[in-house]
Amino acid sequence: MTSRAAIGHDAAMRLAVEQANLVKGGTYPNPPVGAVIIDRGGRVVGVGGTGPPGSAHAEVVALRRAGASAAGGTAVVTLEPCNHHGRTPPCVDALLAAEVACVVYAVADPNPIAAGGAARLAAAGVQVVAGVQADLVAAGPLREWLHKQKTGLPHVTWKYATSIDGRSAAADGSSQWITSEAARADLHRRRAAADAIVVGTGTVLADDPALTARLPDGSLAERQPLRVVVGKRDIPAEAQVLNDDSRTMLIRTHDPHEVLKALSDRTDVLLEGGPTLAGAFLRAGAIDRILAYVAPILLGGPITAVDDVGVPSIARALRWRFDGVERVGPDLLLSLVPR
Amino acid sequence: MTSRAAIGHDAAMRLAVEQANLVKGGTYPNPPVGAVIIDRGGRVVGVGGTGPPGSAHAEVVALRRAGASAAGGTAVVTLEPCNHHGRTPPCVDALLAAEVACVVYAVADPNPIAAGGAARLAAAGVQVVAGVQADLVAAGPLREWLHKQKTGLPHVTWKYATSIDGRSAAADGSSQWITSEAARADLHRRRAAADAIVVGTGTVLADDPALTARLPDGSLAERQPLRVVVGKRDIPAEAQVLNDDSRTMLIRTHDPHEVLKALSDRTDVLLEGGPTLAGAFLRAGAIDRILAYVAPILLGGPITAVDDVGVPSIARALRWRFDGVERVGPDLLLSLVPR
Repeated sequence: MTSRAAIGHDAAMRLAVEQANLVKGGTYPNPPVGAVIIDRGGRVVGVGGTGPPGSAHAEVVALRRAGASAAGGTAVVTLEPCNHHGRTPPCVDALLAAEVACVVYAVADPNPIAAGGAARLAAAGVQVVAGVQADLVAAGPLREWLHKQKTGLPHVTWKYATSIDGRSAAADGSSQWITSEAARADLHRRRAAADAIVVGTGTVLADDPALTARLPDGSLAERQPLRVVVGKRDIPAEAQVLNDDSRTMLIRTHDPHEVLKALSDRTDVLLEGGPTLAGAFLRAGAIDRILAYVAPILLGGPITAVDDVGVPSIARALRWRFDGVERVGPDLLLSLVPR
Repeated sequence: MTSRAAIGHDAAMRLAVEQANLVKGGTYPNPPVGAVIIDRGGRVVGVGGTGPPGSAHAEVVALRRAGASAAGGTAVVTLEPCNHHGRTPPCVDALLAAEVACVVYAVADPNPIAAGGAARLAAAGVQVVAGVQADLVAAGPLREWLHKQKTGLPHVTWKYATSIDGRSAAADGSSQWITSEAARADLHRRRAAADAIVVGTGTVLADDPALTARLPDGSLAERQPLRVVVGKRDIPAEAQVLNDDSRTMLIRTHDPHEVLKALSDRTDVLLEGGPTLAGAFLRAGAIDRILAYVAPILLGGPITAVDDVGVPSIARALRWRFDGVERVGPDLLLSLVPR
């Protein structure tokens, strides 16, 4: 049955994860899903990712590309195919119409309205394989969306840049640039994939950032996240964060829980605030991932990237877990999730 | 000529590097060298590393293990074979006596007294291949010894443990333990491979460390580095650093250059001082490698692992380069060298 060129389920799922990552940021509130169609002979004949809200889901995109070759083949999808009429018809209908013989998915749909796809496929005689590379998908492209389904609140990633000794600026306050051009380009890609960026009024008053996602040539990226400014101080009308490059929301509170409630229609929030705002979110337990861009430099002095996080003694340290370490140009990008 | 099982020069050199790393710490002032003997058919027939001072060099250890199989074969050595009578006869003599047909080495001997080995081998009709995996060896097992040959001073590695936010203790001073058992075991292996450990009187007075290298079961490692306490304050006679587990040297100065001069018979020095001593060494440009054990925890507060490093503005940041990142249990070990 399996020819020498046939792709296995694990490899096909990794390909589906790549497709999902390509559309991440453009699908919310829908999940960023990737799909791969394999024909009877084990060859990849179609790939796809979820389109923007209201357009086709990943399975449908991939099935269209596969055409008649899907019949008798296998669909490999990062999320259990949906079984409900939203703005588009159920993906299960499309898979049945294409006459695939087998559906492989990673993560079950936790949404009770959309779930039941696997059961309906199995009842129609399709072979269903669940849980393939589920951890990879749940920690990867679907992490933020799954968090939102589970908690009703957006997933918050706190991003900061630091020297290896934990400083965000030199003693005189100068900080341009701690990290490399490569790290800044990486950050702009992540901004384009988020659906909101949050800073405090202090950062706006001190640095006047535009908070846009830009391409390496300086032009605006196609997708721009919502800009969110948190705090009670007024910001000047000419602040760059209020320019026309994207929308901006002002939330006049210092309470992280109120911020999350105000952003409850969002899925993937990037917190770029300074030590005061980040400290408040950390103390409130309102951070779901930390991304630290670490430059191989020493600064010393009084300006630390993190101040008070509410830890009086080592026994009460905020304990996380490294879930990723990569080199970005000369810098490191450390990713941490709660332990 | 080459059979299917034959080992290539690069792979053999990596094996020689492993042998060198096994003896690192036990050979100074001699270099920690590794050697691999390959027979005519390309099979590994002997491996070895340099013994303690006065005993056999790596080539001789490996040739002994190879016996008659070395004739017509290849010797792969991390350092150019020596050509002088020290406490042992020249390795070149042993290689010629064993009738090897080819000698492959990584790094040329910078020591004018011992050099000339390659030329003598070539003159005797042996094929000589130089520079194989030279960067790997120069940045690895021979790094500290080459530094000593070049500068006349010991190579200084500054080791510290830190939270991801650059703290060495919580706000109340508690710090046991920031890093994991795995990180502490890794440090004790590195202590056993160093030939001196340096701390300041402040660390002795505050923490009363024994500064010994211990095995995971708590017993003393076979090799114990010299313990060095730097500073002008008196330390109590009952301090653990003065116990009988190893020798101890007191250097009554605050000047890093004077410390290096006092340790000029050493090759590989591990600086474990706190922020005051480390800051003085950093400002003096007296640190050749940084090893940071980074725990995935946040502490915040006033106690930073690094204080004043003499950097007034970002333009004068101390710029390093990551040359290694590894996971040690739940922690990260970052290695940095000057840029």
